[in-house]
Amino acid sequence: MIPANHPQLRSWIEVPQNHDFPIQNLPFGIFSTRGNPNNKRVGVAIGDYVLDLSAVAEHGFFNDLVELTDLSVFYESYLNPFIALGQSAWRATRQRISELLQHDNPTIRDNADLQKELLFAQKEVQMHLPVQIGDYTDFYSSLEHATNVGSMFRPDNPLFPNWKHLPVAYHGRASSIVVSGTPIRRPKGQSKPDYSEQPIFGASRSVDFELEVAFVIGKSTELGQSISVQEAENHIFGLLLFNDWSARDIQKWEYMPLGPFLGKNFASSVSPWIVTLDALEPFRTASPKQEPKVLPYLQFEGDKAFDIQLEVWVRAESGAEKLVCQSNFKYLYWNMAQQLAHHTVNGCNVNIGDLCASGTISGKEPNSFGSLLELTWGGKNPILMPDGSELRFLRDGDTVIMRGYAQKNGLRIGFGEVANQLLPAL
Amino acid sequence: MIPANHPQLRSWIEVPQNHDFPIQNLPFGIFSTRGNPNNKRVGVAIGDYVLDLSAVAEHGFFNDLVELTDLSVFYESYLNPFIALGQSAWRATRQRISELLQHDNPTIRDNADLQKELLFAQKEVQMHLPVQIGDYTDFYSSLEHATNVGSMFRPDNPLFPNWKHLPVAYHGRASSIVVSGTPIRRPKGQSKPDYSEQPIFGASRSVDFELEVAFVIGKSTELGQSISVQEAENHIFGLLLFNDWSARDIQKWEYMPLGPFLGKNFASSVSPWIVTLDALEPFRTASPKQEPKVLPYLQFEGDKAFDIQLEVWVRAESGAEKLVCQSNFKYLYWNMAQQLAHHTVNGCNVNIGDLCASGTISGKEPNSFGSLLELTWGGKNPILMPDGSELRFLRDGDTVIMRGYAQKNGLRIGFGEVANQLLPAL
Repeated sequence: MIPANHPQLRSWIEVPQNHDFPIQNLPFGIFSTRGNPNNKRVGVAIGDYVLDLSAVAEHGFFNDLVELTDLSVFYESYLNPFIALGQSAWRATRQRISELLQHDNPTIRDNADLQKELLFAQKEVQMHLPVQIGDYTDFYSSLEHATNVGSMFRPDNPLFPNWKHLPVAYHGRASSIVVSGTPIRRPKGQSKPDYSEQPIFGASRSVDFELEVAFVIGKSTELGQSISVQEAENHIFGLLLFNDWSARDIQKWEYMPLGPFLGKNFASSVSPWIVTLDALEPFRTASPKQEPKVLPYLQFEGDKAFDIQLEVWVRAESGAEKLVCQSNFKYLYWNMAQQLAHHTVNGCNVNIGDLCASGTISGKEPNSFGSLLELTWGGKNPILMPDGSELRFLRDGDTVIMRGYAQKNGLRIGFGEVANQLLPAL
Repeated sequence: MIPANHPQLRSWIEVPQNHDFPIQNLPFGIFSTRGNPNNKRVGVAIGDYVLDLSAVAEHGFFNDLVELTDLSVFYESYLNPFIALGQSAWRATRQRISELLQHDNPTIRDNADLQKELLFAQKEVQMHLPVQIGDYTDFYSSLEHATNVGSMFRPDNPLFPNWKHLPVAYHGRASSIVVSGTPIRRPKGQSKPDYSEQPIFGASRSVDFELEVAFVIGKSTELGQSISVQEAENHIFGLLLFNDWSARDIQKWEYMPLGPFLGKNFASSVSPWIVTLDALEPFRTASPKQEPKVLPYLQFEGDKAFDIQLEVWVRAESGAEKLVCQSNFKYLYWNMAQQLAHHTVNGCNVNIGDLCASGTISGKEPNSFGSLLELTWGGKNPILMPDGSELRFLRDGDTVIMRGYAQKNGLRIGFGEVANQLLPAL
């Protein structure tokens, strides 16, 4: 048995070089076919195709996997029931799929009828929100982002004294998290521009993206229970790209003293494919050194960061498109294991399907800043678009496209994209 | 047909004077009998009894109600499916229950066997979390509380400039909301005491309650849609008591700049019975005058506040019990209709079962402050308990009991209680 991550593996499905979804990736998602949008089911991405796991189960290919104690999970509208079967079930499933797709396995390869039942072109299917999200937490774990934003909102006090001692976070809104492709409506709300004595009401004039990566909880805990840094990664099912849409004018006026509310909760969007931690294993790397030393419950050994390149593109309604940000998941000061250990150290319970987003991922270089707020420095330094227009904050009709991939020695594990268009306010 | 709220109504079930659950109340909850805790179903409180609505449905008493399009909702583990049938269904159900319980209706009154099937003594049943909570929002709508806390945390800047222009709120944790009776574990976490240069880790030394009332969303909206102040109350199913447990030392160190996180998310607790807005109708009253004038989307007509008396009792492990706070829901500066209009003005969607809590409800008098933080002024002025002990913040073994009721002209509509004991840290 060749492990599903083996870099030499190749599939009988042709996967172009530098494609996000080679046989080593096999991310999980929820899809339906165009003609039948309500018939949601579990799929896995392979090259430009989706492998339908409900059909794979139907044909008995999972029958001998003792870890898969319930095959009905592949017919569900969310991945939660599949995730609930546990890490050994995810691994057995991924391993079996890998075997079925390996170039020398004739089972599906040589059966055209079977292929028709099991495989769908990605461009022919509709992707859905992959998990039912009970709670969503947003961290604030990029030192560069926190410093940049802090220096704009509070010039005399950019980084609070707690920041290097704990991974700051707040609770976000789960109901307004949508999948890639869903249009985002420009929010209305209160703001208090500098020129005005009184707050005003209207459509936000500073809608922004935030480049983030979120992890999906893979194992629930009971109230009162804590997860150690050492155990944390076993509670993570996988990762997806996360755009934390933000209205800066609304946020600036409302956020003191209890944090973001309407400036954030009008929408967040996620990529449809969840890339497992197993697939990302070859891309572990060191995180930035933490100084001062953190408290024992946050101390960790080994590499807990992952080298994942991240990009943000903005496409204007004219079609003009520009790469506005190149960042990396490894820039984060606080890693996922620390985030989850901190989140639960007080006994807060987590549930399968919960999302924990990283916070905006900015690097040191100006082109690595993960939001327009930072890239244009509050709109002061507009980005020149290829159509000659100026981008300060998002304009009606702009589409924000985030992409992510880990790449090393010819192996690429990608996330696909999260792409959403901003519509005018109602 | 006598309307379910009519003050002259009485039931053939004896309900003592000043009882929380007369025939005019009929709050909804989820219960199971002791021997069969997993068999959850919908019940209504009447006096010291629970009327089992699944059994009422079974006997055909709802069959002619055209608004009740699905009777299986009464066999569910949460009220959400019942609530989803809509306001006309809630009203028809409550009206029918009222009729069945009226003193001159012999149907159940004169049938001892039927009574055995339909009625359970409240002391014999177990109450459960009444709704599945998708998202939970906590407002901060008491001027007195915001001023008290602000002056302790930020003496030079107690009330932020936004406070009188919008109902400040933040997202809380839904997963850790538990029902009355569930023990609460003292949380551990980081804090930075004034005497220490560095943060320390350990069990919180300032666990507190917060006296709140929460409303339950009764009608969902789509992303992008807003609810007007005028429409807001039609989106509310009912109210319950809410204890927003807080660890002040953890909160103080972590909350800048993104708001409360681990200082709050270890637990919140709710009373098990949801009192409908219909039952509270006779107790409408005016709210405090809002000055400066609010923006048009927050302006309202008529009485949107409710006169609900609130009490907090602390019972020590010794059994010594003391009434430590007497407040009133009507003290709130921002009413529920304004809260919901603000929450959705940016297009944030709400779902049936979501909770919106008021924030701590403090009045002007020192004995009306809704948290120990305010009552003991950060622990400086301890409360003398009847057993001679001093209460600054909650001690291991203390039970916090919150009660609430509206009362006028001999009619009392009560909430029962939310009572939870604090256990030592693990």
